[in-house]
Amino acid sequence: MEKPYVIGIDIGGTNTIFGIVDARGVILNSDSIRTWDYPEIETYIAALTERLRAMIHRAGGQELIKGIGVGVPMGNYINGNIEYAVNLPWKGIIPLAKLISEMTYGIPVSVTNDANAAAIGEMAYGAARGMKDFIEITLGTGVGSGIVIGGHLVYGHNGFAGELGHVIMRRENGRMCGCGRQGCLEAYTSATGVARTAKELLETRTEPSLLRRLDPETITSKDVYEAAKQGDALSLEIFELTGEILGEAFADFIAFSTPEAIILCGGLAKAGDLLLDPIQRSLDKHVLSMFAGVKLLLSSLKESDAAILGASALGWESKG
Amino acid sequence: MEKPYVIGIDIGGTNTIFGIVDARGVILNSDSIRTWDYPEIETYIAALTERLRAMIHRAGGQELIKGIGVGVPMGNYINGNIEYAVNLPWKGIIPLAKLISEMTYGIPVSVTNDANAAAIGEMAYGAARGMKDFIEITLGTGVGSGIVIGGHLVYGHNGFAGELGHVIMRRENGRMCGCGRQGCLEAYTSATGVARTAKELLETRTEPSLLRRLDPETITSKDVYEAAKQGDALSLEIFELTGEILGEAFADFIAFSTPEAIILCGGLAKAGDLLLDPIQRSLDKHVLSMFAGVKLLLSSLKESDAAILGASALGWESKG
Repeated sequence: MEKPYVIGIDIGGTNTIFGIVDARGVILNSDSIRTWDYPEIETYIAALTERLRAMIHRAGGQELIKGIGVGVPMGNYINGNIEYAVNLPWKGIIPLAKLISEMTYGIPVSVTNDANAAAIGEMAYGAARGMKDFIEITLGTGVGSGIVIGGHLVYGHNGFAGELGHVIMRRENGRMCGCGRQGCLEAYTSATGVARTAKELLETRTEPSLLRRLDPETITSKDVYEAAKQGDALSLEIFELTGEILGEAFADFIAFSTPEAIILCGGLAKAGDLLLDPIQRSLDKHVLSMFAGVKLLLSSLKESDAAILGASALGWESKG
Repeated sequence: MEKPYVIGIDIGGTNTIFGIVDARGVILNSDSIRTWDYPEIETYIAALTERLRAMIHRAGGQELIKGIGVGVPMGNYINGNIEYAVNLPWKGIIPLAKLISEMTYGIPVSVTNDANAAAIGEMAYGAARGMKDFIEITLGTGVGSGIVIGGHLVYGHNGFAGELGHVIMRRENGRMCGCGRQGCLEAYTSATGVARTAKELLETRTEPSLLRRLDPETITSKDVYEAAKQGDALSLEIFELTGEILGEAFADFIAFSTPEAIILCGGLAKAGDLLLDPIQRSLDKHVLSMFAGVKLLLSSLKESDAAILGASALGWESKG
């Protein structure tokens, strides 16, 4: 009998959430721990796997679990390690897949970064079902990406491929990016990038805006979204500028792998048409005509479930 | 018995060259016709396949031929068509694979563009032997690319993926490109692009240069290469500028698919270290540190053989 369940674990800088998932993408049971409560990897693994074993027991036992997938920043699919993640408590190289598997009955564990997990989840349960070629772009605190070609996620030669948040969009006077370089896509089109654009426009321009009621230092992309929804011209312009750069970037991505669709997820994607329409206008303007017609879609996974579902989908690929 | 031979056909704007190739990449026999001698596709196919049948006969008969591969501008791997090629005599959609196969004993025929064929040839017989992840960049009249991921060429959803000559490198005041857009990689780093850079520098600068002995309107990249070899400062600067842009572009390509190597072929690649060294310097400066160490290589295929070998390598993939 095909094993009916997989487990997904999403390790974030704040929380670690995990759950048991069936083949249709229903989360039967979920739980979480706070990542930073465990500055030592040993105690973290002990706490996590204790909860996992209880969860496996409740689901009917280890023989029903096909695999465990983990989405984690700097997770390397090829060797199952976390390598030099900056926003997690544990430094250097952590053999995560091995550590978890040892404490969960030897169930196979696969690891990748959170953006790749999102793409696999979209393919298994979401808007990319049935697609063999698509790119999933996560617009959150940063800009992540998962690239699927011929039905397979692109991991690259070193296991870390698909960092499309770090293609350079502005080669002159580009914004500083967290990666230490300038002009990266992420510096403009992440939620943080949108807030930076808001701050810049409020400082360099004089027209009235709903945003002027807020402290420019603490404005978020959500504030911009709320103001844009009310028709605030400056906020609409911020979405226009953000969409312009995303459309330029997508035109280049399409020249690379010509996907059937580019799918947006993450907090900023909740802006919906406020963001999609400017992206589409920019893409239509910039794409090479032979590549016109690539679909621009929103993730169909509920954001609260997406992290667990994405990670869990990796579990179906394991041989266990 | 595994069939021992394949046939490669390279259809260029001037000549069509073709040959029979064995598993080690030895061209046993080759021939050519002039593409533009046949403005009608029917007479072209008749002339080409007459020569092919003679070649097949000399090699020992059709049962020894595993497949026929064709490299041709706007060749679509998915459907075997040429679609709207601008530099060939035949307009619209040409069902090339079908037309050739019908006239060559039903041997399976696969079609792709010339840059993709170069990548497959490199993987079968050249510098990419044993590699599963690499990008081949053809620096010729234009800039072409073939992207191999997990051992497979990336054709994309529409069969035309991998047009890396048309990613945008200069978004403000970019050079006009043949594609109708501005700032494409090809407009700067093709052989033609190098000649444009030479012309620009000769016009806007005043220092002496060996290139000033030539008519700026007819300077070629080969002239720049010859002058650079003799230590001409302006010519060396042209290679530096060309390498700078290629290195910037390669840093972005690496963020996408993180290949083991980027391999250069085509006329401009004959400049060797004069071009490789500036690219490497630029790449080291621009690549995200987690992706450092991607190899930069020259094609190991003889340029005169590369077109036939590349196309022929497609033949090994056929099921015939």
